[in-house]
Amino acid sequence: MVSIASLFPSHPVAIRKLRDREEKLSGYPHWRLQVPHDIIDVLKYPLTNLTDTERCIVHCDATALADLIRKRVHSAVDVLTAFVKAALVAQDLTNCLSEIFIEEGYERAKQLDRHLLETGQTVGPLHGVPVSIKDHIKIKGIDTSTGYIGWAYKTVADSDAVVVDILRKAGAILYVKTQNPQTLLSLETNNSVFGRTVSPFNRNLTPGGSSGGESALIACHGSPLGVGTDIGGSVRIPAAHSGLYGLKGSVARLPHAGLLGTHDGMEAIVGAVGPLATSARDLGLFCRVMLDAQPWLVEPPLLEMPWKREVAKGEGVPKKLSIAILFDDGVVAPHPPITQALRKYKDALITAGHDVIEWQPLDHQNGWDLIAKLYLLDGGAEYHDTIQSAGDTAVPLTNWILDHAQGRKSYTPADMFRLNLERDAFRAKALVHWNETRHRTATGRPVDAILCPVAPTLAPPHDSTAWWGYTSHWNLLDLPGVVFPVGRFAAADAFAVEPLPPARGDVETFIHGQWNPATYDNAPIGLQLVGRRHNEEKLLAMLDIVESSVPSHTSLGSLHNGNA
Amino acid sequence: MVSIASLFPSHPVAIRKLRDREEKLSGYPHWRLQVPHDIIDVLKYPLTNLTDTERCIVHCDATALADLIRKRVHSAVDVLTAFVKAALVAQDLTNCLSEIFIEEGYERAKQLDRHLLETGQTVGPLHGVPVSIKDHIKIKGIDTSTGYIGWAYKTVADSDAVVVDILRKAGAILYVKTQNPQTLLSLETNNSVFGRTVSPFNRNLTPGGSSGGESALIACHGSPLGVGTDIGGSVRIPAAHSGLYGLKGSVARLPHAGLLGTHDGMEAIVGAVGPLATSARDLGLFCRVMLDAQPWLVEPPLLEMPWKREVAKGEGVPKKLSIAILFDDGVVAPHPPITQALRKYKDALITAGHDVIEWQPLDHQNGWDLIAKLYLLDGGAEYHDTIQSAGDTAVPLTNWILDHAQGRKSYTPADMFRLNLERDAFRAKALVHWNETRHRTATGRPVDAILCPVAPTLAPPHDSTAWWGYTSHWNLLDLPGVVFPVGRFAAADAFAVEPLPPARGDVETFIHGQWNPATYDNAPIGLQLVGRRHNEEKLLAMLDIVESSVPSHTSLGSLHNGNA
Repeated sequence: MVSIASLFPSHPVAIRKLRDREEKLSGYPHWRLQVPHDIIDVLKYPLTNLTDTERCIVHCDATALADLIRKRVHSAVDVLTAFVKAALVAQDLTNCLSEIFIEEGYERAKQLDRHLLETGQTVGPLHGVPVSIKDHIKIKGIDTSTGYIGWAYKTVADSDAVVVDILRKAGAILYVKTQNPQTLLSLETNNSVFGRTVSPFNRNLTPGGSSGGESALIACHGSPLGVGTDIGGSVRIPAAHSGLYGLKGSVARLPHAGLLGTHDGMEAIVGAVGPLATSARDLGLFCRVMLDAQPWLVEPPLLEMPWKREVAKGEGVPKKLSIAILFDDGVVAPHPPITQALRKYKDALITAGHDVIEWQPLDHQNGWDLIAKLYLLDGGAEYHDTIQSAGDTAVPLTNWILDHAQGRKSYTPADMFRLNLERDAFRAKALVHWNETRHRTATGRPVDAILCPVAPTLAPPHDSTAWWGYTSHWNLLDLPGVVFPVGRFAAADAFAVEPLPPARGDVETFIHGQWNPATYDNAPIGLQLVGRRHNEEKLLAMLDIVESSVPSHTSLGSLHNGNA
Repeated sequence: MVSIASLFPSHPVAIRKLRDREEKLSGYPHWRLQVPHDIIDVLKYPLTNLTDTERCIVHCDATALADLIRKRVHSAVDVLTAFVKAALVAQDLTNCLSEIFIEEGYERAKQLDRHLLETGQTVGPLHGVPVSIKDHIKIKGIDTSTGYIGWAYKTVADSDAVVVDILRKAGAILYVKTQNPQTLLSLETNNSVFGRTVSPFNRNLTPGGSSGGESALIACHGSPLGVGTDIGGSVRIPAAHSGLYGLKGSVARLPHAGLLGTHDGMEAIVGAVGPLATSARDLGLFCRVMLDAQPWLVEPPLLEMPWKREVAKGEGVPKKLSIAILFDDGVVAPHPPITQALRKYKDALITAGHDVIEWQPLDHQNGWDLIAKLYLLDGGAEYHDTIQSAGDTAVPLTNWILDHAQGRKSYTPADMFRLNLERDAFRAKALVHWNETRHRTATGRPVDAILCPVAPTLAPPHDSTAWWGYTSHWNLLDLPGVVFPVGRFAAADAFAVEPLPPARGDVETFIHGQWNPATYDNAPIGLQLVGRRHNEEKLLAMLDIVESSVPSHTSLGSLHNGNA
């Protein structure tokens, strides 16, 4: 068990940062809660201080909240209060927040309430909806330490990221930033500034990363909608590990300017901003708000590709889908609860009249080896320098990822050109591979989507994430992926679980070695649907079809219903 | 005056390449023509051997040809014959061809004629239309020496480039490849394999580059439609210098895979495949054929952005345009014939009821300094090595461009990331700059397009191109640019031309020093229209409006009409 005290780092800058954060929190003493450290499932606590109405509020998704505020069923202030109450406890339980600026949130909420009262109009489609923001996304006037001791207090943003600017104009209320790991290149959330974030489902497990502050907060009902980023799984993994929906779109579809991070300007693999939410429709709402703002007129790399809301609602999407299921990427077979979930969906899809084939994995090991090179073109130098020059300490998973740059060797421009070509060849091969599925489908079309695991394990114990291949593969291919919750694992049910096949290598040996039902008790189960590039709308429409194919898609265990 | 004999290099590999080419040409002795070297305007000669019908044929654009073939007014074989006759003389006059495979062209033409006769159907929208291809674009079975001695005979393509594959499937007939310069980083066309290509308008001048084999050939009626590439002006400059239409679209809109060139995999600045044609509508036809083929399903970097043919025809495009005119980029003022042409268009646009403002240039010198760095991230090493390792000789403009890499110093990954950020900051500034024009337009919208020079001079004397800023600027910004012919310069009319303003630097001093009306006698005049990124359709629709605003847009001198 992780002691909450042990989560907190001890560098003088960290101590100052933690003290500053505590000062912000201490303004709301009645809304906080101490829970004994040995309670590992803390999901029910964030709702302790909420009234019945507030509980109703925090169980709404952003789409419903916007509607209720617009209709003046709830005021923006009341909505913010409900989420703030949950967020403060979420922080005490999971250490999910970095920066806190609740007072600014209230100012804005009051303004918005006044505006609606006086004009009868909302300022935009997110009028009054609280939205949480991952730490490395710039908010004007707020520090952007991004998990680096060396950046703390030196990175107070002088402007909003494009995504933040659009959210503000759409009427969203900003009130907290959330934790991300040191380097951002981690699928857990730990850094030497604010320490480690833990899962509210089971505090011995990670909420995922790098957008793990978001996922822990939203799972605790401390925010209805969060903004994360994903260059290897950093939206999808925390969504899966925390029972949420998360979308990583194709590169350059959603606004991405105004993020702080190491390796800005690296383009061999580019990340994507993406939403984490409690409903699939909120993912679409987020994309619609972003693209209706025509962000390509302010952010040069963005594609002028408006959000096709009719497609997102299903227009032109086949009623009978052809879905390929990836059960095993050929490197690390998933743990049994994930395989079981895939089988359940396979059966349900077939029963609902859809066409299901198996997806043959395309070289996930080589894909991983290649993307790891692309992440670390300078041999990891900038990461090491950022940490070392500030007297900072590398957290364990920082060392794990940076060790992928053998000997810290930097590539030459010619090497980098060759690696880009290797990446494009990999992508071209994958396109052919996808197109060729038309020979195996009943529809005669290539498959519409791939259903696959998000990771080989459910939320793992801290510092043990060892395989990114189920998410980073789609970053390498620049395909959109959406994660959705399919249930929660109960260790007590594990008797039904069959043994794992023999391991095929060190990573699989390690991950198979992790399999012990008790470890993952109460962990959420998520799956991933992957679509064609630039087809985010169709992907969300297909998710809707897939979810509605499963009679009760919470039958593996309920998530938000369970802790109401 | 350039002696034709002096055009040809002397390396043993070049001698073999030239001999092989001559052998192909020698199969058609009656269709060739010797013209005395001291005749500099040779435009009328390529039509010498053509019948009246054939002259009609070669004065058709690709759109008309496709129509006439489909209606069986002309057979594909007859059409090919007309263009081949002109192409052979074009080659003898301008040295525009690299690879010749006319027999394969006839085979395909016969097949297509048979197919149409038997089925009543065309195979596609370009059924029977001859299309010429720039040397570095791969055609299966054909050498791709790309102006490098070291590549000759070693680069026989084992597959078609995507653009070529789509052309074939659309029914186009391939029969020649055309010259490109050594390194491709040149706005003229000279290499040590096949030698220099000259302008048929004035053989003392360049036809432009790097797609200068295309422009010379098409200007001679040796091809109705050609495929070039543009990373700094390489479609637009030869189009302008040869009285043609040429389009450089946004990166990743048109197929680009299957090109041979140095620096493959370099992504800081990416080139675009683009058409050169004798009509604006052919540019649209080319784009439509390419995008109707859904090339994003085979070439990973391409955007899934179908061709919006209704927009290209004007749907949704304002009747009253706001156009900004760039008269002077602040580095090198254009020579008088270009300024005169801009003024003429300004007056005509205003008369036609459009809104015209001046475009304030945005730092073209810094833009050039930056893009030159991005071209040569490895300090030019790969270019030098490709030339030197084969005992090849650098042509003069190779040295000119490679000297931009000071000290042949290679950048580090961190440098490259910073340069990418500099580029994006430049682009962001330009976006703001464009958006801000809304404060100066009568329509209250930002301007719809920028009308500007293509170069500071008309087609310059060989080896004297010294400023890319009027084209490379739009590559740096990734904005689509279309070039259109507005007339031809007659030295005899130069009395009307005012003197140039004082020069602002070495480059302008040099280019001003070039101004002598006699030098440019008979050179075509072209202008450029620049649109918003990803708006190629709207750009072509606006070109249509702009051209129709000028009562007789050939009043500065006619192009194709003059040599019929």
